[in-house]
Amino acid sequence: MEDLEPVYVKLGGSFITHKDKPFSINFKALEKTLLILGRAKKFTTIVAGNGGGSFAHPVVKQWIMHDLSDLIKYCQNATRKLNHIIVDYLVNHGVDAVSIQTSAIIVHSSKEYKVFIEPVRYALRQGLIPVLYGECIYSETRGYDILSTEQVFGVIARYIKPKRIVLLTDVKGVYTCDPRKYTKCKVIDEITKNNLEIVLRSIASSADRDVTGSIYSKVKYMAEISSSLKTDVYVVSGFDVEDSISAILGKKPRTGTVIRTYE
Amino acid sequence: MEDLEPVYVKLGGSFITHKDKPFSINFKALEKTLLILGRAKKFTTIVAGNGGGSFAHPVVKQWIMHDLSDLIKYCQNATRKLNHIIVDYLVNHGVDAVSIQTSAIIVHSSKEYKVFIEPVRYALRQGLIPVLYGECIYSETRGYDILSTEQVFGVIARYIKPKRIVLLTDVKGVYTCDPRKYTKCKVIDEITKNNLEIVLRSIASSADRDVTGSIYSKVKYMAEISSSLKTDVYVVSGFDVEDSISAILGKKPRTGTVIRTYE
Repeated sequence: MEDLEPVYVKLGGSFITHKDKPFSINFKALEKTLLILGRAKKFTTIVAGNGGGSFAHPVVKQWIMHDLSDLIKYCQNATRKLNHIIVDYLVNHGVDAVSIQTSAIIVHSSKEYKVFIEPVRYALRQGLIPVLYGECIYSETRGYDILSTEQVFGVIARYIKPKRIVLLTDVKGVYTCDPRKYTKCKVIDEITKNNLEIVLRSIASSADRDVTGSIYSKVKYMAEISSSLKTDVYVVSGFDVEDSISAILGKKPRTGTVIRTYE
Repeated sequence: MEDLEPVYVKLGGSFITHKDKPFSINFKALEKTLLILGRAKKFTTIVAGNGGGSFAHPVVKQWIMHDLSDLIKYCQNATRKLNHIIVDYLVNHGVDAVSIQTSAIIVHSSKEYKVFIEPVRYALRQGLIPVLYGECIYSETRGYDILSTEQVFGVIARYIKPKRIVLLTDVKGVYTCDPRKYTKCKVIDEITKNNLEIVLRSIASSADRDVTGSIYSKVKYMAEISSSLKTDVYVVSGFDVEDSISAILGKKPRTGTVIRTYE
């Protein structure tokens, strides 16, 4: 385990893209990302990762019933495109970012994920922000495997422990219900061992099934990560630059959720 | 060592780009590549790699005296761009190609190149053509290292033995002198142990210093590869689809050079 202690920052798919419009970047989010990473990088090392959003999801849906080689080819084509628009934008605006292809450093072999961590480690040592992404990776047994950005973080955290994890989303945190559907939902300040079950039940009962699946499993997975790595996980709006930077630097954001289930 | 036995095919930088115009693709070469790989793939597995051409060389020249992190960032930005134009073009025209980021699977550690070969192996098993590229990779000792596509082939050949290696260039093979400068140069049919020294001396004495450095060292390196791997190395014009396919399938091209220095 290396003592680099970066903060893992996820640029959520619903933040960085318009999720309902295939292949459409949210350039406002890209501008905010530039400000957030550019400023935060002066104070801490960062490993970033971006979700697939409206680039990956429709493509995976379209090709998942076809040949494995088609699925891999088109899925990687789509995720690569989004990642490189983001990294090119950062590089062209002076942020020291480099792309690291997830499917090139993580494969699923018969029993486990095999990881080639050196490129991430060496990039960090050079003062760069490696930007990974959710992707279709190769699997020895199944042919392919779809890794979300959260799972990518979970896998590489075994080699480079994150100081904390920050998820930048298009909403202000984890809500008591789906804020896109109901008006009375509130942001949950803190998710701990004590209220985790209540929070999960609340999310499950009040939201759409689709949304449930997604937010429910994200919170559940992040609570597991927080507990196993003894790490705080922040969920904040990427559109709020101040709150995003606060979270990255480990300060309580004005609005946002911290998942802390290790105490 | 795996028994996949692919043919390694290099899309030379001077073939795939206009070398004298920065960031300029030779679309005629791209069309030829599509025909060559599309047809050859029916008969053999292929690992492809593309040179940096007019994308990488000016950028490396511009940034090599700057901070290491700048050099890495801009070099990778440029090489990635070219590779993805090529892979996107192939994928969009129905060729089962995937990009594999060289700097994500090869790093230079204190004594040697560390390689994560699984993504290449798994891609081949899925019937895909992995397309690697010459790139600025991370080095533990020096910060960065520039690997040509030939060197990438040399490094991964230790794990997946190539059936043969084919270099697609913008000229018809290895010439007795520089055909862009002199009119009487002839393509050398075969380079063997017996004529290697004469050929090298002939190239060194008749060509420009710049060109010499490049062709001289390429022939020398390929002769070493041929000899150590006991593999034929073909040098043919990528603009000649028939000759390119012949070389890939191990048949003598009408015009071209075979380097066979292992006998």
